[in-house]
Amino acid sequence: MSDLIRVTVWNEYRHEKRDPKIAEIYPDGIHGAIAKYLMTQPGMEARTATLDEPEHGLTDEVLASTDVLIWWGHMAHGDVRDDIVEKTYSRVLDGMGLICLHSTQGSKIFRKLMGTNCNLKWREIGEKERLWVIEPGHPIADGLSEYIEIEHTEMYGERFDIPEPDTLVFVSWFQGGEVFRSGCCYHRNKGKVFYFRPGHETYPIYHQPEVLKVIANAVRWAAPVNGPEVEFGNKEPLEDIAES
Amino acid sequence: MSDLIRVTVWNEYRHEKRDPKIAEIYPDGIHGAIAKYLMTQPGMEARTATLDEPEHGLTDEVLASTDVLIWWGHMAHGDVRDDIVEKTYSRVLDGMGLICLHSTQGSKIFRKLMGTNCNLKWREIGEKERLWVIEPGHPIADGLSEYIEIEHTEMYGERFDIPEPDTLVFVSWFQGGEVFRSGCCYHRNKGKVFYFRPGHETYPIYHQPEVLKVIANAVRWAAPVNGPEVEFGNKEPLEDIAES
Amino acid sequence: MSDLIRVTVWNEYRHEKRDPKIAEIYPDGIHGAIAKYLMTQPGMEARTATLDEPEHGLTDEVLASTDVLIWWGHMAHGDVRDDIVEKTYSRVLDGMGLICLHSTQGSKIFRKLMGTNCNLKWREIGEKERLWVIEPGHPIADGLSEYIEIEHTEMYGERFDIPEPDTLVFVSWFQGGEVFRSGCCYHRNKGKVFYFRPGHETYPIYHQPEVLKVIANAVRWAAPVNGPEVEFGNKEPLEDIAES
Amino acid sequence: MSDLIRVTVWNEYRHEKRDPKIAEIYPDGIHGAIAKYLMTQPGMEARTATLDEPEHGLTDEVLASTDVLIWWGHMAHGDVRDDIVEKTYSRVLDGMGLICLHSTQGSKIFRKLMGTNCNLKWREIGEKERLWVIEPGHPIADGLSEYIEIEHTEMYGERFDIPEPDTLVFVSWFQGGEVFRSGCCYHRNKGKVFYFRPGHETYPIYHQPEVLKVIANAVRWAAPVNGPEVEFGNKEPLEDIAES
Repeated sequence: MSDLIRVTVWNEYRHEKRDPKIAEIYPDGIHGAIAKYLMTQPGMEARTATLDEPEHGLTDEVLASTDVLIWWGHMAHGDVRDDIVEKTYSRVLDGMGLICLHSTQGSKIFRKLMGTNCNLKWREIGEKERLWVIEPGHPIADGLSEYIEIEHTEMYGERFDIPEPDTLVFVSWFQGGEVFRSGCCYHRNKGKVFYFRPGHETYPIYHQPEVLKVIANAVRWAAPVNGPEVEFGNKEPLEDIAES
Repeated sequence: MSDLIRVTVWNEYRHEKRDPKIAEIYPDGIHGAIAKYLMTQPGMEARTATLDEPEHGLTDEVLASTDVLIWWGHMAHGDVRDDIVEKTYSRVLDGMGLICLHSTQGSKIFRKLMGTNCNLKWREIGEKERLWVIEPGHPIADGLSEYIEIEHTEMYGERFDIPEPDTLVFVSWFQGGEVFRSGCCYHRNKGKVFYFRPGHETYPIYHQPEVLKVIANAVRWAAPVNGPEVEFGNKEPLEDIAES
Repeated sequence: MSDLIRVTVWNEYRHEKRDPKIAEIYPDGIHGAIAKYLMTQPGMEARTATLDEPEHGLTDEVLASTDVLIWWGHMAHGDVRDDIVEKTYSRVLDGMGLICLHSTQGSKIFRKLMGTNCNLKWREIGEKERLWVIEPGHPIADGLSEYIEIEHTEMYGERFDIPEPDTLVFVSWFQGGEVFRSGCCYHRNKGKVFYFRPGHETYPIYHQPEVLKVIANAVRWAAPVNGPEVEFGNKEPLEDIAES
Repeated sequence: MSDLIRVTVWNEYRHEKRDPKIAEIYPDGIHGAIAKYLMTQPGMEARTATLDEPEHGLTDEVLASTDVLIWWGHMAHGDVRDDIVEKTYSRVLDGMGLICLHSTQGSKIFRKLMGTNCNLKWREIGEKERLWVIEPGHPIADGLSEYIEIEHTEMYGERFDIPEPDTLVFVSWFQGGEVFRSGCCYHRNKGKVFYFRPGHETYPIYHQPEVLKVIANAVRWAAPVNGPEVEFGNKEPLEDIAES
C-alpha cells in the first residue's frame, strides 16, 4: 500500500459545462481546481470523477482505492444513482474519509450519513462571509489565521438541520445578519466526515489559498486509520459464565 | 392542547402471537405492558399501535397526535412500510420524541435517523447485565440507583455502530466480557431520540420497575418543547448590505 | 421538600451602587430585576444575594437550600472569597444548577468549572447582537422565535476559550463582524451549568422579555434531578472473581 | 524547529524508589519504560522528568520545548508545587499536548483542566480488565485489535466524575462487575488532553505492547498543530457600524 493519501475529487460538473461565466472561473471544473491544488501537497495524490462519467466515475475499483472522497454537488443531487450512493455510504462506514463541500449539504450521501434533512437558509447576493476558527487546536485549523474572509459569496444561515457535530471547527458570520456552523466533523463508524461550507460555483472561492488549505488539512484529518477490524454478529462469551 | 404527554407505544407484536412462552410473559404484548405502566404515571397518557394494524397503527392522525413514540421491533423490521418510516422520520424531525428499545437498533427508522448501520455483537445465553449510570445529573437518571441489574438477558456488545451520542447516560457490563453504550441521547432537528438497550422478548424485563422508570423518564425528556418555528429556504437579508 | 425550584440570584452589585445611570436602569440591581421576573414564573421561587453581604450572601444554609444559582459578576471577580468559590463549586458538583450570565465568564467559579481561562474578544460601542437558536428542540429554546435581537450591547467575540459545550443552544452574530457561542450547556458531575451571554450593566437587557424567558427556561433545565447517590472510593467486587 | 514531536515523560517516581518489588518491574522507573519505548518510534524524541528533581524537572525551558507531556502520579499529588501546576496548565492551553495516565486522574493538573474532582471507584485485587475500542476510526485506535486485555490490574469503576469527553475512545470491562471510560479526549483551548486508564505501578502494564502503542498514538494525536494565534481582549470592529 502506498504511503500517499489517495484522494478522489468528485464534482457533478454541470454548472461549468452550461454557463460560460462559471467555466471561465473553473476552466477545468471545480474538481479540476481542487485536484490540481491537492497534487501540490506532500503526502497525497488526487484524481477526479464526475457525474456524467459511467457509474459517475465511482466504480467499485475507484471507491476501493480512494482514501478520501471530496464531493461537490448542487443542481443534480437527484441524478446521482441510489446504488452508487449506497456503495459510497458503505465505503465511508468502512473507513473512507468524506469531505462534503458547500451545497453538497443537500446531497443524498450527506443526508444519509447525517440522519437529517440538512436544510438551511440561503441567499445569493454576493455578500461577505467571515469564517471564525472556533477550535484552534484542531488539525483542520493548521496554518490558518483567526478567521477566513470571503469577499463575495452565497449566504447559508442557521438553523442548519444537522446533528450536533462531534467537533465544530468554524462558525461563519454573514453581512446580512446570519451565522452558520461552517466546519463540522463527524465520525460515522470507521469513517470520518467533514462538512465545509465555502465554495459557490459563481465565485472563485476554490482558488482562495486559505480555503484550499482547509481542504488539504481536512484530507489529512479524514484519512483512514488502521483501526481494528470490527466484527458484528453472534459471539461466544469471552469469560466463563458460572452457573447461577 | 392537552397538558398530558401523549405517548404511543408501538410494537411489531409478532413474537408474542407466535410463541406461547413469550405470550405468557407479555399476555398483552410488550406494548401492552409498557403502556399499562405509563398510564399510571402523572402527566402522561398512553395508547398502543402494532405492525399488523392498518398502516401499522401509525396513521397520519395518530402520528400527528403523538408527542412521544416508543418503538419495539425485532424479527420484522423488513415488514415496516417505507412510506410509514418516512412519515415517522418527518414527525421526529418536526419535534416528536422517539424512544427506541433493544432490537429496534436494527429498525429502518433508527438506522435512518442515525446515519449508520447500527450493527453490534450479540449473544443469547441469558447472562447478567449491569447498566451503570454514567451521567447522574441527567433527567433520565432520575430516581435510579447507581446501576440497574438485569439478571438474565441477551447480550449486546461493542463495537456498536452508532454516531457518538449527544449524551451517554448508561454503559452496560455483561457477564461474558463485553460492554455496551446502552442509554444514548440524540437531537435530530426539533426531535429527540433515546436509545435504551434492555428488553428482550423472552425475559420479563419490561416488568422490572427500574427499566419502566427509565422509559417514563425518557418520555419526559423526549417530549416536544415549544421551540421556534424554523424557516428554511431563500431569505432576505436582516441587515442593510452597504455597497462595497 | 418543596416542589418549587428554589433560585438564588447572585450579583456583585457594584456597578449599580456606583453609577447613577446604571442604577436608573436597574434600581433594584440586576439581581433584583431577574429575581422579580422569576417570582412571576410558575414552579419557582427566587431570592437574592450580593457580594457585599456577609459571606457574599452565600452562607452554607443559603447554598444548601438553593436548587439553581444565577451569577452575575464583572468588575469584582477578584473580591469573591476563595472559600466561598470552593463551597459553590462543591454544591454544583453535588447537583445545584448554575447559570452564569455575561461577564461571569471571567469569574473564579466559572473558570474553575470549565478548566480553561474563558478569555474572549470584547468591544463596547453599543452595537447590535442577534442570537440564533441552534438547537430548536432544546428546552432552553422553549417559547422563542428563531432569533433574539438585542439592539445595543457589548460585543463578545470568538475565540471564546471554553471547552466544547455538551450542547450549544445559541450562536450570536454581531454588527461589527464577530460571532460567539452565547448559550452553552455543561454537565459537571451531578450539576448542570448554563452560560448565557446577554446582559451588560449599561443596557436594559434584563428587562427584555426574551432574555428573561431564556433565564427561566435555563432554571428549569438546570434544576437538580433526583439522580443516584454516587459512591466513590474502595469497593468490593460485585461478582465472584474466580481463581485464575 | 525540529520535525520530531518532543515528548517529556513525567513521573512522581516514588513507588519505584521505595518498594523493591516495584523497582523490579520498572528498574528505570515508569517514566524510563515509557520513554525508552517512545524513543523507538519514528517521528518522536523523548526525555524524562521526575518530582524530586529541581522544579520537578519541569523548568520553563523544559516546558517550552515540550510538545507533549506524559504524566504519571499517584501517592504524591499533594507534593506537586502549585506554581508548576499553573505553568503546566498555561502550556496546555497554549497548545502542549498532555497525556494523563492511570492515577493521574487525581492530580492537580488533571483536575484543574477538567473542572471536576475526577473521583471514581477503585479496588486492588489484580482482576482482569478488557478495554473495548469504541471509536475504531480514531487515530488513537490505530493498529489495535477490537480490545486490549490486561490480565491483572487495579479496577477503576464508574461513576467517574469527569466532564463528558469530546471523544470517548475506550470503555473498560472489569471482572468484578464495573465499567469505566478509560480513553477520553478533550480539547482545552489550543491544547489536547488524553486520559488513559491502564498502568498501575505493581503490574508490568507499561511493558505491554498494546498499551505502549496507545501511548504513542496519543502522542501523535495530542501533538500541537500550527493553529491561529488567538488574540483576546478589546478589539476594533471589523465592519463599518452604520449609524442607526
